This record gives sequence, C-alpha cells and structure tokens, in this order.
Amino acid sequence: MKKIIGITLGDPAGIGPEIVLKAISRHTEIYDRCSPVIYGDPNILKFYSNLLRLKTRIVEIDDPNQLSNAKSDEIYCFPVSRSKNKIIPGKVEGKYGLMAYNYISKAIDDALEGKLSAIVTAPINKEAFKMGRVPFLDHTAILSNKTNSRNTMTLFVTGNLRIFFYSRHIAFREIADSLNKSAIIEALRQCHQYLEKIGINNPEIAVAALNPHSGENGMFGSEEIDILIPAIKTLRKSGLKVDGPVSADSVFHQAAEGSYDAVLALYHDQGHIAAKTYDFHRTVSLTLGLPFLRTSVDHGTAMDIAGKNMANETSMVEAIDAAIRYSW
Amino acid sequence: MKKIIGITLGDPAGIGPEIVLKAISRHTEIYDRCSPVIYGDPNILKFYSNLLRLKTRIVEIDDPNQLSNAKSDEIYCFPVSRSKNKIIPGKVEGKYGLMAYNYISKAIDDALEGKLSAIVTAPINKEAFKMGRVPFLDHTAILSNKTNSRNTMTLFVTGNLRIFFYSRHIAFREIADSLNKSAIIEALRQCHQYLEKIGINNPEIAVAALNPHSGENGMFGSEEIDILIPAIKTLRKSGLKVDGPVSADSVFHQAAEGSYDAVLALYHDQGHIAAKTYDFHRTVSLTLGLPFLRTSVDHGTAMDIAGKNMANETSMVEAIDAAIRYSW
Repeated sequence: MKKIIGITLGDPAGIGPEIVLKAISRHTEIYDRCSPVIYGDPNILKFYSNLLRLKTRIVEIDDPNQLSNAKSDEIYCFPVSRSKNKIIPGKVEGKYGLMAYNYISKAIDDALEGKLSAIVTAPINKEAFKMGRVPFLDHTAILSNKTNSRNTMTLFVTGNLRIFFYSRHIAFREIADSLNKSAIIEALRQCHQYLEKIGINNPEIAVAALNPHSGENGMFGSEEIDILIPAIKTLRKSGLKVDGPVSADSVFHQAAEGSYDAVLALYHDQGHIAAKTYDFHRTVSLTLGLPFLRTSVDHGTAMDIAGKNMANETSMVEAIDAAIRYSW
Repeated sequence: MKKIIGITLGDPAGIGPEIVLKAISRHTEIYDRCSPVIYGDPNILKFYSNLLRLKTRIVEIDDPNQLSNAKSDEIYCFPVSRSKNKIIPGKVEGKYGLMAYNYISKAIDDALEGKLSAIVTAPINKEAFKMGRVPFLDHTAILSNKTNSRNTMTLFVTGNLRIFFYSRHIAFREIADSLNKSAIIEALRQCHQYLEKIGINNPEIAVAALNPHSGENGMFGSEEIDILIPAIKTLRKSGLKVDGPVSADSVFHQAAEGSYDAVLALYHDQGHIAAKTYDFHRTVSLTLGLPFLRTSVDHGTAMDIAGKNMANETSMVEAIDAAIRYSW
C-alpha cells in the first residue's frame, strides 16, 4: 500500500495554501508514490484554488485511511476548520495563527495513531501564533511537546547534500565556546542513529572544521586539535564512520558529490550558506527524533507575495518527496 | 587588437602545466578573444604535452608583442627556463619552487611594461618555495612587492557571484573582534573602487551579516546593530550603493541571481563556503589593487594527481575567461 502523507496547510494568509495546491496539482507524479492528504480548511483551499484557476476537485475526507485509492485529479482535505469569512492574503492575524496551529495539532494526532507515514508542513507565521495566543513558538516546539520528544534534530536536505547542525540560533560570538568534546560526540552519535532511522545504513559522516583551512595544524585556531579531532577519534574507536574535521569550504561540495552521507555543520550559517547557495529552492528541512518523520519547506509565509500567484512550489515538492523517501 | 594574456606555468611538478595545456588546447575559443602566452619552460611543456598526447605545436616567442597573429593550433611559450632534466611530477623540490617563482617574476615585469593585459597564474607550492629559498610566501606577496601595491584585495568570482573578503586567514574566534566601523567602511570603499576598475559601474554591494538571521534585531548578537548598520548608513550618505547586512544564508544566492554586483563576506569560510558549494570547479580568484589584473585558479598543486592526466582544467579556463573579461 502507498504511504499516506499528511500535509498541513500552514498560515491561511501566507503562501502555504498556494504552494501546497501548486505542488499537488502540477506534480501529479506525487500520487504514484503516496496518497497525500491536506490538514486544513476546504473553504480556504477553494478560495486559493479559484485564485490559481485550478480545475482539480477538492474532496473532503473524514479519515486518511479512506485514501487507499487516491486519484491525481482530486485533492484530499481533512477539514480541521471551515472558515466562513474571506481570507485576506498577506494579513497577520491571531485567528490565522490559531487555525494553522490546529492543522498541525490534528496531523500530529493522526501520525501518532499510525494513520500517517509522515507530516509535511507549510510555513506558519510566528507573529500570528503570538497574536492568537498559541502556546508554542514554532513547529518544532509543538511537535516535541505533543510527542514527548526531547532530542529532536534538524537535517537539511538539498539533493544528495545532507546537513546536521551542532548549534543554531546563537550569537556568532558564542559559537567557539559552545564546542566541547562530549557534546560533539553526543551530536555525532545522534546523527548516526537518525541517518540509520531514515534508511541510510552504516552512514559516513564528515565534521566541518571551525577555522579556515581547518586551522592548518593550529596556525589559526586550535579547536580542531583540542576538541574535534579527539571527539572523532573516540567515535571511530567505537566503530562509527566519522571523518574530519574537513575544511568547511570543501566538505559540503564533497558531500554533494557523494563522498559523505551527511555533514555535521558546527553553526547555523555554516550549513545554511552551503545548502541555500547550492540550491536555494530545493532545500528542505527534516525533523528527526520524533515518533514519525516531519519534513518542511525551508522558507517562511512570505506575506508580501501571498495571494499573488507568485510563490514557487519547488521546495514543497521536494519536502513531499523527502517525506516519501525517508519515512519509515 | 586582442588582449595579450600571460599565463604562468606554476610549479613544474604540480598540475599547473597540465591544466594550462588542457585549457588552451581543448578550449580554442580562447584564441578568438585573446592571445595567450605561457611564461614557463618549453621543455616542460613538451614533456607534459607528450604525456597528454597533445598534437598542438609549441612555439617559442621572445616577446609577447609578436603574438598579434596567435593561431589556435599553436601554443606560445616565453622560455623563462629550459630545463634539461626530466621533471618528476608530484615531487616537492626547491628547484621547482624557484622555477615557478621565475615565471611569475618575468610575467610581472612584462605586465608592468604594458606588454600584458593580465596575468593568469597556475598554482605554486609553498613548501617548494621555502625549499628553494624564494623570498616570498605566495603569489600575492610577490605581486605586491614587485609592483609596490599595498592594498590588494581578493575577489572570488563564480559565474555571476562575486565575493570580497573583509578578513581571511585568522582564527574563527578572532572574527567578531576584527569588525569595526571604520575598517568596514574602508573595505567597502575599496570594493566599490575595484569593481569600477574591472568595468562594473556604480556597483551595488551587499554586506553579509555576521549572526544567524542577521541577529534578528539583536536577539542573537549585536554586531549588525553596533557596527554594520552604522557603517552602511555612512556609505549610503556618501552616495555609494551598499545594502545589508543581509542574512548570510540568502545573500550569496541573491547575488548569484543578479540582485547584487558583489557581496562583502566578513570572514574566510563565509565566502568560501558560498563560492565553492555553488560551483566548486568554476570558482576563480582575482587580485585587485595591482597596476594590472591577476586571476588565478582556486586550488593548489594537487601533487597527488600530478602527471596522471587526471586534473580538471575548468577553473583554469574560467581564470583565463575572467582575465579577458575584467582586465582593463
């Protein structure tokens, strides 16, 4: 049987509904590989469907298990809400934040019950979340809380390039001090475990260096010698395939060419610059460490272009593709 | 009249001779746009030419001014040396370092006399330089010294993506402290001036942010607020088109798409990761601030594959292309 993939609609006033509709109606090969079901609002889907002049029929379903015979000329929606008011694209509103939250919440319930193989999320707006008094900051907070998961990890995927992050939203000045041997070891063990979970057996992981040219034997910076090399040695002794530290300016290229199954980036921009400069629109984000797989586009609600038929659905297509490929 | 471009052969035992020969003999369209002359050794060229089974004739010239009628079935060489001994590819030797140095030195003399529009350099080996007691560390040191240039600046070019560097070979830990308003202003003024010199009039330059998401209004890191924004404001008041700070994970993509003429990267890996992940083999380096243009491949002598007909000449072709496009 084909996998059933839940797609949450995101903020109704952002570009989420548009990219979901474009992805599913334009890339019908998706239906050959999975049965997609949108967690959202049939009225909102109809509103955007008219705006995009789509002909595909929107079909409401009560349960994703009804989807065994999904057809590519139909779009399936689980009606979490039924908005009676006209949506105003581009508007940041508390009620929109709350609606987006409810879509995610219901999709998580169904995934926990085993009805979905994975969840793909369209973007939410943090400001709208705040205005709607949603008690969570973002997707990851909701997912971790509702599934009792404490060690989630983000994996960026762009083609063959896979990137984990050791640290993310911290000041640049704090990056060097955030490194320590045991935390690096812990992070790499987790990367290894999560790669196996998504079907990459006995993976080879490269650690990006912190200093330029990997420090050139301590000539500029010693974190490679003091922290990274000892951590890698310990992991190798335990049988894990870990390589590096590899100069950050070549490691991502090497991984994209297939030399490594993944790279551990030490900080946000190190991995983000690589993924997004390599292929901006094809970069998707996976959340690992949950009971199920969640994938996501790597952009926001883009309120400035919402409702204008200007949004590019490539990242949503890639996020659906990653959900199919990597879910278990 | 076509521009005359000098190409230095680099370390005779590295991949320099191979990529120079491959670039010129395989990409004969180069001859439509310039007259290339190799500063090197005709015997070494013949050695590698046989090894690569090339049929193109090697012609010695005494003066680049004889090149007005360069033909694409001939390879022109100014004989700086005439080695009688067999070259051993892959060997790091003082005499090879010295030979490579002499090629550069002679090309600089000719460029200073106005005989060359630009110099393209194949890689040298720093170790061989040291063993041969060459009194300089690298190309830039030779160029600066022999031309009395004090403010040279490196520009990376990969397709439409152009990247300057505020800092380069310093420890990661020192990057944040290296930032200060007046130095950023000075660097950006220089970027502006150098872009105009290579023919990009009234250029728009983006400054990459230091912190993730450009610090999100001081939430993680304050260098954007304290240093970068004030510097950019000052420059804008003086009429320069400077934008930013732009989040580092999107600014390089935007520049590659044509939104900016160049990006000022704040540190080595920020710009190097972008350029090399974007297109590893097509990244070339320009040295600006000299009396003439110098371009260079962005890789080393690769001693491990020298003499094996395995080297990829793409970067050399791009370096020659950049020399033609950007020289004045």
